[in-house]
Amino acid sequence: MVERGARLSHVDARGKARMVDVGLKPPTRREAIAAGRVYLGPRAFRQVKRNVVSKGDVLGVARVAGILAAKRASEWIPLCHPVPLELVDVDFRLEPGKRSVAITARAAARWSTGVEMEALTAVSAAALVIYDMCKGVDRSIRIGDLRLLLKRGGRSGEYRAR
Amino acid sequence: MVERGARLSHVDARGKARMVDVGLKPPTRREAIAAGRVYLGPRAFRQVKRNVVSKGDVLGVARVAGILAAKRASEWIPLCHPVPLELVDVDFRLEPGKRSVAITARAAARWSTGVEMEALTAVSAAALVIYDMCKGVDRSIRIGDLRLLLKRGGRSGEYRAR
Amino acid sequence: MVERGARLSHVDARGKARMVDVGLKPPTRREAIAAGRVYLGPRAFRQVKRNVVSKGDVLGVARVAGILAAKRASEWIPLCHPVPLELVDVDFRLEPGKRSVAITARAAARWSTGVEMEALTAVSAAALVIYDMCKGVDRSIRIGDLRLLLKRGGRSGEYRAR
Amino acid sequence: MVERGARLSHVDARGKARMVDVGLKPPTRREAIAAGRVYLGPRAFRQVKRNVVSKGDVLGVARVAGILAAKRASEWIPLCHPVPLELVDVDFRLEPGKRSVAITARAAARWSTGVEMEALTAVSAAALVIYDMCKGVDRSIRIGDLRLLLKRGGRSGEYRAR
Amino acid sequence: MVERGARLSHVDARGKARMVDVGLKPPTRREAIAAGRVYLGPRAFRQVKRNVVSKGDVLGVARVAGILAAKRASEWIPLCHPVPLELVDVDFRLEPGKRSVAITARAAARWSTGVEMEALTAVSAAALVIYDMCKGVDRSIRIGDLRLLLKRGGRSGEYRAR
Amino acid sequence: MVERGARLSHVDARGKARMVDVGLKPPTRREAIAAGRVYLGPRAFRQVKRNVVSKGDVLGVARVAGILAAKRASEWIPLCHPVPLELVDVDFRLEPGKRSVAITARAAARWSTGVEMEALTAVSAAALVIYDMCKGVDRSIRIGDLRLLLKRGGRSGEYRAR
Repeated sequence: MVERGARLSHVDARGKARMVDVGLKPPTRREAIAAGRVYLGPRAFRQVKRNVVSKGDVLGVARVAGILAAKRASEWIPLCHPVPLELVDVDFRLEPGKRSVAITARAAARWSTGVEMEALTAVSAAALVIYDMCKGVDRSIRIGDLRLLLKRGGRSGEYRAR
Repeated sequence: MVERGARLSHVDARGKARMVDVGLKPPTRREAIAAGRVYLGPRAFRQVKRNVVSKGDVLGVARVAGILAAKRASEWIPLCHPVPLELVDVDFRLEPGKRSVAITARAAARWSTGVEMEALTAVSAAALVIYDMCKGVDRSIRIGDLRLLLKRGGRSGEYRAR
Repeated sequence: MVERGARLSHVDARGKARMVDVGLKPPTRREAIAAGRVYLGPRAFRQVKRNVVSKGDVLGVARVAGILAAKRASEWIPLCHPVPLELVDVDFRLEPGKRSVAITARAAARWSTGVEMEALTAVSAAALVIYDMCKGVDRSIRIGDLRLLLKRGGRSGEYRAR
Repeated sequence: MVERGARLSHVDARGKARMVDVGLKPPTRREAIAAGRVYLGPRAFRQVKRNVVSKGDVLGVARVAGILAAKRASEWIPLCHPVPLELVDVDFRLEPGKRSVAITARAAARWSTGVEMEALTAVSAAALVIYDMCKGVDRSIRIGDLRLLLKRGGRSGEYRAR
Repeated sequence: MVERGARLSHVDARGKARMVDVGLKPPTRREAIAAGRVYLGPRAFRQVKRNVVSKGDVLGVARVAGILAAKRASEWIPLCHPVPLELVDVDFRLEPGKRSVAITARAAARWSTGVEMEALTAVSAAALVIYDMCKGVDRSIRIGDLRLLLKRGGRSGEYRAR
Repeated sequence: MVERGARLSHVDARGKARMVDVGLKPPTRREAIAAGRVYLGPRAFRQVKRNVVSKGDVLGVARVAGILAAKRASEWIPLCHPVPLELVDVDFRLEPGKRSVAITARAAARWSTGVEMEALTAVSAAALVIYDMCKGVDRSIRIGDLRLLLKRGGRSGEYRAR
C-alpha cells in the first residue's frame, strides 16, 4: 500500500533534500482526489450560506483560487515536479451540522508522477480563500481534515482512504 | 472582537467579490501568529524524527517553503492585498504523543492591513511540504488545526485565540 | 495634459529601455479607471447572458482574474514599477445592442507612480477570461476599446477621457 | 466550425466554472496566430516611429513581454491548461495611416489543447507594454482589434478569420 | 565596514534560517550597483558584437530580463525581503580584450533594507540571458566576477568596492 | 561540437529576438550539469563552515532556492522553453584553500530542448542565496566560474567541459 518503502522519498541517505528522478517511470493517466474542511462557527457559516443561497461569489472565488494554485503546486512545494494538469475540479458542500464548508478537489494528468499534491494544494488554497473572506466575521475559524481521498494510475495501484 | 461587523468583508451588497479599499487606514506595525499540525502516523513520524535528530533537511525545506509562500500570499488569495512583509518566521515542534508536527508561523509588516493571511499561508505551505516528503511512507497523513493564534496592531485591538 | 513632455518616458536618450526613477516623487493617493469591451457575437452573447441570469460563474471568474492580474502588473509589463495596490475593482455590464460585455476596472494606491497600467491590466485579463470561456461557441470574438477613463492623484492633475 | 457545440466550455450544467478535462484528446501539433492593434495618436506614433527608425528598444521590450506572458498564460487565465510551448513569435508593423502599431503573435505546441489563448495573451501583453511606454506622451491611446487569425491542429479542423 | 558583526544574518543562534526583522529600521533611500561579466570566447563575442552593431535584440532582451528579475528578487532568494523598487537600470559594455560583456545593474528604493540583492539578481539574470543566446555558438561560455560595486543609504554608511 | 553553426540561435536574420521552434525535435532524455563558485573571503567562509559543521540551514536554503529556480528557468530567461523537469539536484563542497563554496547542479528531462539553462539557473540562484546569507559578514564576496560541465541527450552528442 506504500509506494517506495518506509523511507522519506525526498531526502537522500544523508538526509539532504532532493527531487526524485521520475525519468524512468512511464507517463500514465494519474488522478487524485483530496478533501478538507473550513470550520466557520455559527455567524460566518450563516453569512456564507446566505451568500451561496443568493448565488454570490464567495465559493466561486475559492474555486478559482484552488484551480490556479493546483496548476502552480510545484512553485509552492519545492521538491514537487512540475505537472501539466489536464483537469482540476474544486467543489464545496455546506455542512450545517458542523457549521463547516467541505472542500473536494480532483486533479488529473498523464504524467510520470502522481498528482495528489496538486489536489491537496487546490484544497488548501480554496480553504484559505474562504478563511480570508470570513475572517472579519469570526477570528476563530479553523481549517482541518485536509487529506487524500483517492489516488490512482501509478505503479502502486489504487489508494482509497477508509 | 470582530472587526467590521458580522458581514463578509470581501463581498459587496450584491454578494460580488471585491478587494476592500484600505486606503483610509493608517499604516501601523501589524503582527500575526498562526499555527497548524501535520498528523503523520507512526511510521512517517518515526522517519521525520530520525531526519530531525540527524539534522536532515525535511523541516528546513518546509520552513523555506513557508517563508516564500507568505511573501506571495496575495498571489494565492485573490482578494488579499499585497503586503511587503518585514518578517516571516516558521517553527516546528515534534509531538510524539499525537505523532504530529506542530507548525507555527509569525508574520509582521508596517501596513494598513493585517497579516494573518500571510501567517496562515506560511503554515499551509509548510504543512504541504511535510506531507509531500512523507507521502511515500504513509498516505493517510492529515493536515489540521490551521488557525490564528494572535493578531495585533490594527484598529480592532489584539486578538488571542483561547 | 501630458505628464513628461512629448517623449517616451521608458527609453533614454539613446532609445534604450529603462525604468523611470520615481524616487523623487512623493507618495500620494493615486486612482485610475480603465475600460474595455469583449464583442461576443449573437451566440456567445446569449450564452453569457444566460449564465449571468442564472448567476453562473463566467463573470465571477473574469473578475478574480482581473484582480489577480492587476496586483502583478509589474510582472507582465517590464518597466512598470511594483505598486502595493490598496484597491482593485472589476465590473461588467452586458450591452445587448453591441452583443458585448463592457468591463471597467478601478485601481488605487498611495504611491509615487500612477496606477493606470494596473487598471488596464485588470481589464485585459478579465477580457481574455471571457474570451477563453466563450471561444468554444464562437471563434470570431474580438476584444477592443481598451482605454483609460480616469486618472487622478499625481503631479499632472486629473485626466478624464472625453 | 465551432468546436464543442454552442455551449460555454468552461462552465458545467449548473453554470459553475471548471477546467475541461483534456485527458482524452491525443496530443497533436497545435498552432494559433492572434493579432491586435495599439492606436497611438499622432504624437505617440511619431515617437514610436522615431524609436523604431533609430533601432531603439520600444518594440523589443514589447516582444519580450509578449513571449514571457504567453508562456504563463495559464497563470493569467484561470481555466486555461498549462501548455509547454514550443514556439512564440511576436511581430510588429507600424501603420502610419491609422497611427497604430499592429501586433501579431504566433504560438505552437504539441499538446491536447489549442494554443489560441497563448497567442492572444502574447498580443495583450505586448500591447500593454507599448501603451505603458507611450502613456507619458498621450493618455488617449487605445488597444483594440484583439482577435484570433488562425488556429490549426485540433479535432475541429483549421480556422481562419475572414 | 560590516553591518551586523561577523555573523550570518539569516540564521539564528541554532543555525536555523530566518528572515531578519527589519521593522525597526526607518525607510531611507537605498541604492546599490552590482556588476558581472560573461566571458564569451572569440566566436560568440563576434556574434554579439555584430548583433550590437546592427542594433539587434541580444542585449535588449538581457536588459529586460535583468529588470524583471530584480523586481522579483524576493521570489528567488528565500530570506530576501520584498522591496518595491523605484529604479532598476541594466547596462552593458563590450570588452574586446577579454572577449566578454560587462554587465552593470543599479537598483534603488526607499525602504528599510538594502537593495544589493536586487542589483545582483539583475546582473545574474542578464548574464544567463546572454549565455542562453550564445550557447549554440560556444558551450564553454563562463559567467564570473559577479560582485557588489556600491551600496549606500543604510545605517552602515557607504560601501565602495576597491 | 557546436549545435547550430556559429550563429546566435535566439535572434533571426534581422537580429530580432525569437524563441526557437523545437517542434521538429523528438523528445529524448536530456541531462545537464552546471557548476559555479562563491568566493567568500576568510570571515564568511569561517561562518559558513561553522554552520555546515553544526548542520545549520545555510546550504539547505541555497539548495531549495536552486531547485525552485530551475523549475522556473523559463520565467527568468525570456527565450527559454518551458521544460517539465524530472530531476534537479544541487550540491555543495567547501573549498578551504580558495575560501569558496563550489556549487554543482544537475537537471534532467525528457524533452525536445536541452536543460543546460535549468542547471545554470539552479547554480545562479543557489549562489545568490549564499551571497545573501553572508553579505552581513563581508561585502566583497564574489560569484564566479559559472559554467556548463556536461550536456547530453540531444542531437549534437555529448559535451564535456575540459
